[in-house]
Amino acid sequence: MGQPRTVFFLSDGTGITAETLGNTLLTQFDGVEFKKTTLPFINTPEKARATVDLINQLASRQETRPLVFSTTVSDEIRGILRGCKVLFMDLFDGYIHTIEDELQQKSTHAAGRAHGVADASRYNARIAAMNYAMEHDDGQSTRDLSKADLILIAPSRCGKTPTSLYLALQHGLFATNFPLTEDDLEQLRLPKSLEGLAGKCFGMTSDPERLSQIRTERRPGSRYASLAQCAYELRQAEQLYRRYNIPFISSAAMSIEEMATMVMQEKNLRRQTF
Amino acid sequence: MGQPRTVFFLSDGTGITAETLGNTLLTQFDGVEFKKTTLPFINTPEKARATVDLINQLASRQETRPLVFSTTVSDEIRGILRGCKVLFMDLFDGYIHTIEDELQQKSTHAAGRAHGVADASRYNARIAAMNYAMEHDDGQSTRDLSKADLILIAPSRCGKTPTSLYLALQHGLFATNFPLTEDDLEQLRLPKSLEGLAGKCFGMTSDPERLSQIRTERRPGSRYASLAQCAYELRQAEQLYRRYNIPFISSAAMSIEEMATMVMQEKNLRRQTF
Repeated sequence: MGQPRTVFFLSDGTGITAETLGNTLLTQFDGVEFKKTTLPFINTPEKARATVDLINQLASRQETRPLVFSTTVSDEIRGILRGCKVLFMDLFDGYIHTIEDELQQKSTHAAGRAHGVADASRYNARIAAMNYAMEHDDGQSTRDLSKADLILIAPSRCGKTPTSLYLALQHGLFATNFPLTEDDLEQLRLPKSLEGLAGKCFGMTSDPERLSQIRTERRPGSRYASLAQCAYELRQAEQLYRRYNIPFISSAAMSIEEMATMVMQEKNLRRQTF
Repeated sequence: MGQPRTVFFLSDGTGITAETLGNTLLTQFDGVEFKKTTLPFINTPEKARATVDLINQLASRQETRPLVFSTTVSDEIRGILRGCKVLFMDLFDGYIHTIEDELQQKSTHAAGRAHGVADASRYNARIAAMNYAMEHDDGQSTRDLSKADLILIAPSRCGKTPTSLYLALQHGLFATNFPLTEDDLEQLRLPKSLEGLAGKCFGMTSDPERLSQIRTERRPGSRYASLAQCAYELRQAEQLYRRYNIPFISSAAMSIEEMATMVMQEKNLRRQTF
């Protein structure tokens, strides 16, 4: 294997859009090593020229040409960036014109719209969702539970916290989570504070081995982390979900993004993405 | 204004990539109302055919044709989806072939790579970052602060928590945050637990009016929420940052994404994006 292939994500905003599509495309090429750099906020001709110089200097020292994924809305800046001696992939240009033709309307060419605070009330609602998720994490607060869009329930360490925070932060949902205690699991009963809220609940489970491994990192050698205890809790949790007709998923082989997507789909929650 | 324009995001995975580029493109068209639906996990020919039926039925009842942003890796599924009677924008097709030619390697056509758990150790490190951020939120824990990639500091309600959680969740950073108390602000001193850690610190500030408004929602009529108190705390905080040579940004008109991007750029933190 030679030098890693250099990749740049260029943007007049945060660079998140360029990274998201660019990285997705690169995941399709196994065994190639990429060295990635994001250059955000290229929003003046001066910065664009400095970027071209930087990239061309670097490119001149490499055997292979860099890949560049670029999302900029200004024609002037885009024109300058095209001076990079690289494989230049403009992720905007083609589509913007296609959509302009379809909508019979010119695009605004305003930078930083996608990941800025363009819509203040939408942004504030997202922050409110985030605060709600934080305050209600792990059953810390039972106040305003009826406001929740969603309540994730599971035994300890099945991934409730990251998933509900992700749902709040990326999808603006009032997502919260509640632990199932040994008592709940033994009696196959929802926690008292969730009575009447089964319709908002979504269960999580895992593999006993995986759960035991995660719990062992936290409390090595404990009953809590033992394979037998993990297997018991997961078995009881699934029975509890079935009893209340609560849908559930396993976090053992799924990412936060995949779980969040499945939860929103199953519960028919209005999906926005920030 | 007529009917809103229907938009679909289609994917064999979570749909996040299609939404991210699609939404970014749509932000360029002011005044057009869009009705958006994400259809994820279209990973079999049957699901693809059902999707085409659904979209075509809907399209036949509308005056304007829907816009479709699609990211699927299978040629078969893509072929079926192209049967939609819409403006079909494939966000993969063109670029994948361009990159294949450049790298002289065929793409793998494996679905769900971008937002799945393809790389388990990378994914686990991200979850560890998330847990770290949660445990250390708002100065709750001073254990292992030296492990932090970054410590956000600010007076109460300047946006520390959402920003550090975002940095952990989306960029996999060990990001934490610490409040500046009235004592710290009066004496222009870093909190004791942060002694020797100024190099990891990044300050946040806000506008007095905005801060007062946010604090009022929490404790209406309090000294804490008064404009005078907010102005005082922000003035002192900026002085403190300058004294320790700590870079800082204002959360008043910036989104979490923009602040995270600026922080990573300023502190030269290795940027990954999930």
